[in-house]
Amino acid sequence: MIYLDNAATTCPDGEAFSRAQEFARREYFNPSALYGGGLSVRNALNGARESILKSIANPSAFELLFTSCGTEADDHAVFSCAKRGNAVTTAGEHAAVFSAFTELKNRGVEPRFAPVNGDGSVDGAALLSLVDEKTSLVSVVHVNNETGAVNDIFALARAVKEKNPRCLFHSDGVQAFGKLPFRLTKDVDLYSVSAHKIGGLKGTGGLFKRKGLSLRPLLFGGGQEGNLRSGTENVLGILDFAYAAERKFSALEEDLRRLAEYRERLWSLLDGELFVRISPSGGSPYILTVAAKGLRGEILQRLCEEKGVIVGTGSACSSKKPYSRVIEACGYGKEILGGVLRLSFSPQTTEEEIGTAAAALNCAARELKARIG
Amino acid sequence: MIYLDNAATTCPDGEAFSRAQEFARREYFNPSALYGGGLSVRNALNGARESILKSIANPSAFELLFTSCGTEADDHAVFSCAKRGNAVTTAGEHAAVFSAFTELKNRGVEPRFAPVNGDGSVDGAALLSLVDEKTSLVSVVHVNNETGAVNDIFALARAVKEKNPRCLFHSDGVQAFGKLPFRLTKDVDLYSVSAHKIGGLKGTGGLFKRKGLSLRPLLFGGGQEGNLRSGTENVLGILDFAYAAERKFSALEEDLRRLAEYRERLWSLLDGELFVRISPSGGSPYILTVAAKGLRGEILQRLCEEKGVIVGTGSACSSKKPYSRVIEACGYGKEILGGVLRLSFSPQTTEEEIGTAAAALNCAARELKARIG
Repeated sequence: MIYLDNAATTCPDGEAFSRAQEFARREYFNPSALYGGGLSVRNALNGARESILKSIANPSAFELLFTSCGTEADDHAVFSCAKRGNAVTTAGEHAAVFSAFTELKNRGVEPRFAPVNGDGSVDGAALLSLVDEKTSLVSVVHVNNETGAVNDIFALARAVKEKNPRCLFHSDGVQAFGKLPFRLTKDVDLYSVSAHKIGGLKGTGGLFKRKGLSLRPLLFGGGQEGNLRSGTENVLGILDFAYAAERKFSALEEDLRRLAEYRERLWSLLDGELFVRISPSGGSPYILTVAAKGLRGEILQRLCEEKGVIVGTGSACSSKKPYSRVIEACGYGKEILGGVLRLSFSPQTTEEEIGTAAAALNCAARELKARIG
Repeated sequence: MIYLDNAATTCPDGEAFSRAQEFARREYFNPSALYGGGLSVRNALNGARESILKSIANPSAFELLFTSCGTEADDHAVFSCAKRGNAVTTAGEHAAVFSAFTELKNRGVEPRFAPVNGDGSVDGAALLSLVDEKTSLVSVVHVNNETGAVNDIFALARAVKEKNPRCLFHSDGVQAFGKLPFRLTKDVDLYSVSAHKIGGLKGTGGLFKRKGLSLRPLLFGGGQEGNLRSGTENVLGILDFAYAAERKFSALEEDLRRLAEYRERLWSLLDGELFVRISPSGGSPYILTVAAKGLRGEILQRLCEEKGVIVGTGSACSSKKPYSRVIEACGYGKEILGGVLRLSFSPQTTEEEIGTAAAALNCAARELKARIG
């Protein structure tokens, strides 16, 4: 089986898992406990925190709190920081930020959605025009999860702060963390990440927070995570996240180079009469989104699966909707919207798989086209 | 090492873990994905849901949503159901419910706290007197996590409904689930549980919800868990929870009988001149809370640890506070409050360990008493 839906979730890193489970099963103590075992677990958690923190940020300028998923990190940022007035985001956000912004209406905050370009990246000028003195939060996804388009969040954050220095800036970095090289700048107040997109386990995420920024908790209770995220820590998931991230970051540049080649190779092998490309050439090398014009993506997905190739049809998280809200926002019509396929890679993807996948996709699209006449 | 802090967290069930990780590592697909692998994971999650659901409820009357911990389940219930007017809980709650109620003040709902008896159980008449036509929610912990006192939540829920049929009833069942025999009745609208207290992993909890009860989400995003709890599901944690619960429930009565004996045996072996008992005789057999009069619990804890016996000093979740809020609410003075020790058991606890632990506790208390003169 060739698995090209790695942006939905990716195979857990076996070495990271073995290491994490070995510790978590032996040192199963509650990290809030004050005896030796508890302190040992607490130290391990803080080691994991430090390791992940350092991978993209200066630990003297940022803190990291662990959450149960990227969605919780996004929701925490949005609900804690969007107060009164308005809050600005983009039409290209993952459902976690988009739905949280939609909910803001019920909480007395006006959500504003900046339009996206054809590749899913935000229209920066339009975004900035929505920011005013009543804007409490701007949230812009780092890598668009449906197209792979990369937003220059650092330039956008700086421009937002120039317009309104009190406005906070958050970015959903779930598809960027461990995949693109970058360091958080001081203009970014909050940054969300997720473990299971980079070889960690489902059930762990994180929220980077600029030091000095005061956040309200989303979960109230025993006061874990500096009183910002109560609930007994997911020790196995957190350690596994740190170990998987270490391995991912150590190979980041090499993976990037190779996957950029594979992405372009896959695109070059696809039949240009059948497929149009939605992903930009400058986007994340981990994602190639295409559409089979006039064909149904979910049928193509099934035909590819029969040929041993797993592809995505858009964000797995919003798979209940008929069309992708994000691709629709890119300005495409129904002929394209119905045929969207997201092909997403992992470091384990091989050149041979790329060739086989391209053949399966072409064959599936030709079959389906012939069938519908 | 003898571990008697199982109410804080307990050793993961190795068999359940092996089974869960074998599946989760092989079938790592996103349960929202529409291809075979995704559906297989979705089916496994629903199997786990059904299994846990059936263990304490009628699946035609209740639903179960998975959360990241007991705290999230408690917070979800409280913040979703406490609307306008007032909400009533007890002074004996775990921090998850207590802190959520405290936060209600900031959200325009008046929190009311019913007093507890000397053993930590709620004063039922006082609780009912706080319920009026403006009460939207009553939340009562099933088993007090600091004393083991069992509240008759089914009788309380019925009495609450008789007084105000529109009022919802929630119970934090984290220390009861898998440990006491009971079935949820229709008067209980919401019931919180946690995996890591019964041999599951940290990072998974659940909220039982009466069918037909409409709940607001706490996390917004991709619409997982029937749109009530967005975020990619913690597949490993959920399956492990179900497997651990199956094993726990299959031995529930036998464990209960044996641990009740051990608890009484431990109490009978403790030096009556040094220790007073806080736990009631009718409480959960899993918890024996005592206090060494005039001695400091955390020093006793350290002395016991040196002798190879791990004991708790109260709720691990609130270990940053000087005294236990709950034991204080039971009406004890400082001489007792400072010396509280929580001894909590698991099915792995042996009779021999009980004897060794009692000797260590007596010895530690005598040492400390001699030292302070």
